[in-house]
Amino acid sequence: MANRFTVILAAGKGTRMKSHLYKVLHPVCGKAMVDHVLTQVEQLHPAQIITVIATHAQAVQDLLGSRTQYVEQTEQLGTAHAVLQTEKLLSQHSGTTLIMSGDTPLFTAATLEKLFAYHEQQQAQATILTAKTQNPFGYGRIIRDDQGQVKKIVEQKDASAQEQLVQEINTGVYCFDNQKLFHYLHQVNNDNAQGEYYLPDVIELMQKDHDRVSAYLMDDFEESLGVNDRVALAQATKIMQARINRQHMQNGVSLIDPEHTFIDEGVQIGSDTVIESGVVIKSGTQIGHNCYIGAGSRLDAAVLEDNVHVMSSTIEKSVMRHDSNIGPNSHLRPQSDIGPEVHIGNFCEVKNATLGARTKMGHLSYVGDATLGSDINIGCGVVFVNYDGQRKWHTDVGDHAFIGSNANIVGPVKISDHSFVAAGSTVTGDVPQHAMAIARARQTNKDNYWSKLPLSDDPDWQ
Amino acid sequence: MANRFTVILAAGKGTRMKSHLYKVLHPVCGKAMVDHVLTQVEQLHPAQIITVIATHAQAVQDLLGSRTQYVEQTEQLGTAHAVLQTEKLLSQHSGTTLIMSGDTPLFTAATLEKLFAYHEQQQAQATILTAKTQNPFGYGRIIRDDQGQVKKIVEQKDASAQEQLVQEINTGVYCFDNQKLFHYLHQVNNDNAQGEYYLPDVIELMQKDHDRVSAYLMDDFEESLGVNDRVALAQATKIMQARINRQHMQNGVSLIDPEHTFIDEGVQIGSDTVIESGVVIKSGTQIGHNCYIGAGSRLDAAVLEDNVHVMSSTIEKSVMRHDSNIGPNSHLRPQSDIGPEVHIGNFCEVKNATLGARTKMGHLSYVGDATLGSDINIGCGVVFVNYDGQRKWHTDVGDHAFIGSNANIVGPVKISDHSFVAAGSTVTGDVPQHAMAIARARQTNKDNYWSKLPLSDDPDWQ
Amino acid sequence: MANRFTVILAAGKGTRMKSHLYKVLHPVCGKAMVDHVLTQVEQLHPAQIITVIATHAQAVQDLLGSRTQYVEQTEQLGTAHAVLQTEKLLSQHSGTTLIMSGDTPLFTAATLEKLFAYHEQQQAQATILTAKTQNPFGYGRIIRDDQGQVKKIVEQKDASAQEQLVQEINTGVYCFDNQKLFHYLHQVNNDNAQGEYYLPDVIELMQKDHDRVSAYLMDDFEESLGVNDRVALAQATKIMQARINRQHMQNGVSLIDPEHTFIDEGVQIGSDTVIESGVVIKSGTQIGHNCYIGAGSRLDAAVLEDNVHVMSSTIEKSVMRHDSNIGPNSHLRPQSDIGPEVHIGNFCEVKNATLGARTKMGHLSYVGDATLGSDINIGCGVVFVNYDGQRKWHTDVGDHAFIGSNANIVGPVKISDHSFVAAGSTVTGDVPQHAMAIARARQTNKDNYWSKLPLSDDPDWQ
Repeated sequence: MANRFTVILAAGKGTRMKSHLYKVLHPVCGKAMVDHVLTQVEQLHPAQIITVIATHAQAVQDLLGSRTQYVEQTEQLGTAHAVLQTEKLLSQHSGTTLIMSGDTPLFTAATLEKLFAYHEQQQAQATILTAKTQNPFGYGRIIRDDQGQVKKIVEQKDASAQEQLVQEINTGVYCFDNQKLFHYLHQVNNDNAQGEYYLPDVIELMQKDHDRVSAYLMDDFEESLGVNDRVALAQATKIMQARINRQHMQNGVSLIDPEHTFIDEGVQIGSDTVIESGVVIKSGTQIGHNCYIGAGSRLDAAVLEDNVHVMSSTIEKSVMRHDSNIGPNSHLRPQSDIGPEVHIGNFCEVKNATLGARTKMGHLSYVGDATLGSDINIGCGVVFVNYDGQRKWHTDVGDHAFIGSNANIVGPVKISDHSFVAAGSTVTGDVPQHAMAIARARQTNKDNYWSKLPLSDDPDWQ
Repeated sequence: MANRFTVILAAGKGTRMKSHLYKVLHPVCGKAMVDHVLTQVEQLHPAQIITVIATHAQAVQDLLGSRTQYVEQTEQLGTAHAVLQTEKLLSQHSGTTLIMSGDTPLFTAATLEKLFAYHEQQQAQATILTAKTQNPFGYGRIIRDDQGQVKKIVEQKDASAQEQLVQEINTGVYCFDNQKLFHYLHQVNNDNAQGEYYLPDVIELMQKDHDRVSAYLMDDFEESLGVNDRVALAQATKIMQARINRQHMQNGVSLIDPEHTFIDEGVQIGSDTVIESGVVIKSGTQIGHNCYIGAGSRLDAAVLEDNVHVMSSTIEKSVMRHDSNIGPNSHLRPQSDIGPEVHIGNFCEVKNATLGARTKMGHLSYVGDATLGSDINIGCGVVFVNYDGQRKWHTDVGDHAFIGSNANIVGPVKISDHSFVAAGSTVTGDVPQHAMAIARARQTNKDNYWSKLPLSDDPDWQ
Repeated sequence: MANRFTVILAAGKGTRMKSHLYKVLHPVCGKAMVDHVLTQVEQLHPAQIITVIATHAQAVQDLLGSRTQYVEQTEQLGTAHAVLQTEKLLSQHSGTTLIMSGDTPLFTAATLEKLFAYHEQQQAQATILTAKTQNPFGYGRIIRDDQGQVKKIVEQKDASAQEQLVQEINTGVYCFDNQKLFHYLHQVNNDNAQGEYYLPDVIELMQKDHDRVSAYLMDDFEESLGVNDRVALAQATKIMQARINRQHMQNGVSLIDPEHTFIDEGVQIGSDTVIESGVVIKSGTQIGHNCYIGAGSRLDAAVLEDNVHVMSSTIEKSVMRHDSNIGPNSHLRPQSDIGPEVHIGNFCEVKNATLGARTKMGHLSYVGDATLGSDINIGCGVVFVNYDGQRKWHTDVGDHAFIGSNANIVGPVKISDHSFVAAGSTVTGDVPQHAMAIARARQTNKDNYWSKLPLSDDPDWQ
């Protein structure tokens, strides 16, 4: 096997994206397009990977780091010019160079490996990766001779009526003999309407010199989709999502509506977990076996152990231990750790807090910056008052404590094991074990007060 | 260019809709079908637009107002009879009359313009708008002679085996020489199974008299969809939605799942805004650049400036200023004005209130009928008590105020700049600058109270 | 008409489902696959229905009960072996036996009836149910002779190039002469790679003996889908859902997005009801006329009368009376009965409670274990404190009562008609008619307290 190199072209402006975001950084299923490309290329272990970026494309380097080398293309003068920027890094080596674009997020390592292998087996100087499509309009067509050898690539505008019927198209991905590549790149000119240096011209030059040009027809045209606008971005997202979701289903996950379940790459999901339609699961999430994730849920870097039940809730950077449940309409903010068999009901928020096993928090409560033991009951409307306007304070609650409804627990404070806070109390001091804290006025009934109320004037109320 | 007129047939009962709603008023992407038709027709600027409605179809007139004239068809005796009702308004003019149905919401002005132009260029007395479909079953087929001239329209039930193979169908839209039209309408009879007067019979009569009948084949069959039941209504909605969404994507908006993003006609969205799946955006909404609208959000006549972040929230007739954010699971009710950089977290409701810049309202609070300054902190569970059973009262809160958790702010009241309301307080009087309002009982811990609580009897708690 | 019998094969392991759930119990639109099959079969009223299950498949018997007889197949030795387990129950009868699999949830009674009828009319000893597909790869092909008689079934691996082009495939459903069936089942051997006894071998044996084998070609290949993995399970769900939703649309229900509206079998919905995208409606739900169910709603065994409006809310085992409304983001837990014209706003929870006519509950409140009269106003943040840590208590509230915001109503307690609870009060005793209950401290303003607050140190606040 010859030395292998890869060049990723990622300097394009992407005008049709109409975006301030650098084109190849647009995400597909939660991952930048160029990162998808690089991830696939890495699986081929080439000796060098070089990404050609525009000047000031620092964001690409911030994202990809040292996984690739970078060269800058200071002016966008065409694909041949872009590749030529890698000359200093590459041209001294013998071997094969794969060239592809950073805006084609769907190519798989398997396809690229087949392209390399075919190129090497054919002992070609250049191999074009081609695909077949029913609607080839707009693509460069691959014109082959009677022996099936590549005669030329014809662009749409130059294609004869006969050539326009050809369904084999150029995907824009190539393998080149590395030294031949740089030899011919210097011969490419920009005598065309756009005044650009085009990489496919290298193919033509090679054929003139009787270098061997082959073409490898890939199985699935869909992989070759290039993204130039948001319509194509949505198409790429749909295809990538289908690929991800199919894998989860094959692993034993039930997706009620796989076309509308939005799972980022790299998410792990155990078998017998059921996920309803419209659920969004972002990168970094791990879900155990036999969980249920209801419609309207959003999991972002969440960790769910087995048998966790989530209905219509948002979970961010938090853990739910086995057999816990939440929802509908609750929210775990980052650094929450929800213990086993914990029940969190509706309209609850937890932030930077630990809830011990079997603790219950049924409704309309906020627990923030707190450590809660096990078997605690949090009433309805309870607020852990953690903020004094300047800093956040921490509260501890012991096992088996009972916090009455609409209570305020003003941190920092310690509520002991087996203690009780009466409903409606604002607690500012520690509560000892077995004590009841109460902080509220006694009820008074003012008789016949109704006549003094505005209600008494309202004929609808009388 | 001859005088142009348009007749919209909107008197049909729509029995198969099984609805109390008048058929052409059924909405497609938030706009009544007949309004879609009228909107397209208006772009052609005909001299007159006449809509034929059934008796008592006041709701159509309420909706469309003076954008069209109306004639009533008191009995539904067929399409020819319907058109004949416009005789007094139209028959005295020379020119071309376009006739189409109010239940075909997908026709575009561009197609209708091409039909008019073709009709005029052909100097025809009648021109049928036709389309090609792979599945012509059920449609009237356009039978042409060897020269491509229209010989006749054959209905499904009358078509020979050969004729049934014809894929060019009658869309039910026509241009007529206006005076010829009314001449022949009087000759149409109702000798048929339904006992109705059919408009296509005019074509046949014209051909008998050797008037020139042409047919204009439109590009896209999909535009011609007529809605007779809710299945077709859903299809029309899907096609219209795809058209709207494609336009937004081409403008630089990222739709994660364009097939399931529900944006009404006329909504404005800036570039680099990202919209997740399942979002509903109703008519009258304007969204700035670089906003993020997460799954589960609903915007109804909302105005969002740039860089606004909405997660799983409902916003009705309200404004969010630049760099503000909300959600998940919050709700802006009408007449809310959320200032720049304001943070509204989860389970919050705002109604008829202004929040100044950088004010924060993190959780489980209700602000109604209030004017809030900037840099205010609203704790968790705070309620602006605006209703006394009979009327609503207004509250003002000054800059930098701090409202503690679970506080009740009972309007009308004024909380000054740099003032503080202690958690758990019910505030009924004004709070001066730099003051702290407090209205709560002190905490008492009753030791060993646990033994008196029902909890002490529960073996699970001990 | 001969005696009819049905055997449902439901003993398969379903390894590719990767599930702890017994294969045929996997749900499609809220109903186990084998239940779908049985429901269709029941409509044919066969004399006996026998389901072949694996040992220890008690869950199938728990689900289907006495609707079918059961026989156990102790070892999974193939389909012929499975059918043979029914010998004691069936072989003594003359008549026709339908054999089908419990993992084919889409077959309709209409198709099965046609199969029976064709089998009887053809006086065949066996009839294969076949279907045509463009992509027959993997299926057994039906090879017919020049007269159209079935010659043989050829499995994919044994098919010649010519045979592979055949698009008529074996669906795996058969009618057999009952006594012939058992006669031949004993002759089937397991001389094959898997060492299993295959039911199609019976067909071959019959043909060798010149028994009459016919094949009935069904209309719609889609019905024949067998579910072997979660990908197919999702496909079956999609097809079944489309079938259910089409029926609702034809009944006059508007589905904005029928491809993503998740309605279980058996749900009843009145005409002119509108249902937005992504709504989940589970089994047992009944919805009246002219209701509106907004995106993000989930109805589970809910009963909605006419003109009910639900926005983004969850309703479980509860009733909403006519002209009531709820949402967005509220939650009815089981045994709630919401009266006519009741308004429930956002972030509200009701559990095991009755709300009388025109009662209002706008925001952030919890009503649990309570009986409320009519025309009551529940403020914001109100909590019905029903739990003391050990048991639940019931509360009664009379007509026209007014419960102030953030009040706690600690059960058991009785709030009388025309009484008033002041905002912020914790009410533990009964409130008589026309009385105002108040339980809160008076407001004190501590002047210049700001300097003592942490806020005063914060440069951002000054």
